[in-house]
Amino acid sequence: MRYLTARIAQQIDEELMSAVGAFSLDQLMELAGLACAQALATVYRKDTHSRVLVCCGPGNQGLFFALLSERVLLTGPDVQGGDGLVAARHLGMFGYRPIVYMPKPGSKDIYKHLQTQCENMGITIIPPSNDLGPLVEALSNSDVVLDAIFGFSFLPPIRAPFDGVLPILNDAGVPIVSVDIPSGWNVEKGNDLGVGLKSDVLVSLTAPKEGAKDFIGTHFLGGRFVPKSIAEKFQLDLPAYPDFQQIVELESQSKSNRHQY
Amino acid sequence: MRYLTARIAQQIDEELMSAVGAFSLDQLMELAGLACAQALATVYRKDTHSRVLVCCGPGNQGLFFALLSERVLLTGPDVQGGDGLVAARHLGMFGYRPIVYMPKPGSKDIYKHLQTQCENMGITIIPPSNDLGPLVEALSNSDVVLDAIFGFSFLPPIRAPFDGVLPILNDAGVPIVSVDIPSGWNVEKGNDLGVGLKSDVLVSLTAPKEGAKDFIGTHFLGGRFVPKSIAEKFQLDLPAYPDFQQIVELESQSKSNRHQY
Repeated sequence: MRYLTARIAQQIDEELMSAVGAFSLDQLMELAGLACAQALATVYRKDTHSRVLVCCGPGNQGLFFALLSERVLLTGPDVQGGDGLVAARHLGMFGYRPIVYMPKPGSKDIYKHLQTQCENMGITIIPPSNDLGPLVEALSNSDVVLDAIFGFSFLPPIRAPFDGVLPILNDAGVPIVSVDIPSGWNVEKGNDLGVGLKSDVLVSLTAPKEGAKDFIGTHFLGGRFVPKSIAEKFQLDLPAYPDFQQIVELESQSKSNRHQY
Repeated sequence: MRYLTARIAQQIDEELMSAVGAFSLDQLMELAGLACAQALATVYRKDTHSRVLVCCGPGNQGLFFALLSERVLLTGPDVQGGDGLVAARHLGMFGYRPIVYMPKPGSKDIYKHLQTQCENMGITIIPPSNDLGPLVEALSNSDVVLDAIFGFSFLPPIRAPFDGVLPILNDAGVPIVSVDIPSGWNVEKGNDLGVGLKSDVLVSLTAPKEGAKDFIGTHFLGGRFVPKSIAEKFQLDLPAYPDFQQIVELESQSKSNRHQY
C-alpha cells in the first residue's frame, strides 16, 4: 500500500473531482464522513461512549479553489471540517449524542447546509468563538473526541484558537479518533514537533498519508470510492475492504516500517 | 411504521431537499444507492451471484422540476435511475461484476457524471436502444437483477421499451431486487394489474410505500438519512436500524396486514 505525500493526496482529490473522476464534493464527503462515523462506532460503542465531541477545523483558512472543467474544486481544511459535520450527522443517526465544536466555521453554502442537517438531528453546534471555555466544558461531558480539525493540506503554524485547542484535547484523557491525520502532525513527517494530537484511532481517507507511518493505535482506511482507473494511475495498491463495508482495519504499524529519521 | 402514498413520499423528498432539510440530491442518492447495493449483497453473495444486471429507468420521462429556495429539486424516474447507477458503482467496489441496462438515459449532468463514475470502475453500460436483444443477452449472463426502473412517482402506462422489458425480466428466472417499489406496480395499490415485476427482494427507501404491503419476500428499509425533525413531522415511526448499518430488514408481511380489496 502506498503512503501519500500531501501533494499526491491533493492530486488524487483533484482527479476524483475532475471531469475524469466526475465525483461531486457532496458525494465524496458523504462517503468519507460515513466511514469516519462507522470507524468511531466500531471502536467506541454507544452504550459506553455516546457523547462524542466532534471538532471541526477552520472554514476560511487555507481554502484552495480551482476551476476544473467547470466544477469548483474545494479542498483543504474546509473539507476536513465538512467530513466532521457529515460524521456528526451519521453518529446522531446511529444513536450517539454528538455535539459539534467548530470555532471558525466557513461561509460556503455547503457548510451551512451540513450544519443545518446536523441541527435537524438535534445536534448542538457550539457558537463560534476564540474563547476556549466552551470547549473545556463540552470536553468534560464527552466520552470520545472526533478530530476533524486539520487534514492533509495542513501547514504550520497552528493559528488561534487551534493552538490552544490541541493541548486541551491532549490533556483531557478522552480518547481521540482522528480523521486522515492527527491534527497538528506534519502530514509527511508525523508528529515531529510533538505538538500534534495523541490520537487513539486514525481513519485514513483514500490512502494513508506519509506521516501516518508514525501512528500507533487502531488504524482504519475509509473512502471506498477510488475507482480502479485512478487507483492504478496513482499505484495506490489499496487493501481489500471486507464484503460491503466502508472501512477496513489496517495492520498495526510495527517499528520496522516507521519513519527512520 | 407508516406506509406512504406517492404524494407523501414526494412531500418528504421535497422537504429533505428544501432549505429546511438542506440535503443535496447527490447526498441522498449516494446513501440510497449504497443501501441498495448493501441489501443486494446481503442476500446474494458475490461468490455465487457476482453478475448483476442493473436496470435503470427512463431519464427524460416524468421529470419533475421545482425551484425550492434556489435549489433544483429533481425527483421522479430520473432519481430512481440515479440510485441504480450509484448502486452499480458500489457493487463494483464490493467486487461484483455489474453491467448497466439503461435504454433511455437522461441528459442531465448528474446522470452523465454517475455514468462516468461507473465507467471508471470498468462497468459496461449497454448502449441506449429500443431493441430488446441486448437486454435478453445480458440477462442470460446475469445472476441477479437490480430493478431501478420505476420509483414512487411511476404512473401508467408503461412506455416502450419498458413495456417489453418487464415481461422479459419476469420470465428469465433470475432473482430480482427492486428499489423502492417493484417496477410496474401501482405505488399505492400494489401489483393490481399483474404486469409488475415479481421481485424477490425489495429495498424501500425512506419509508415503504402503500403498495409494498402486498410484497412477499425479503424486505429491507434503506435511506438512513431522515432527520428526527422530518420523521416526526410526517409521523414515519421508522424502525431502528442495527448499530451503524445503512439497511434494516423488515418483518415479512403476513396476510393480515396486506391490502384488502
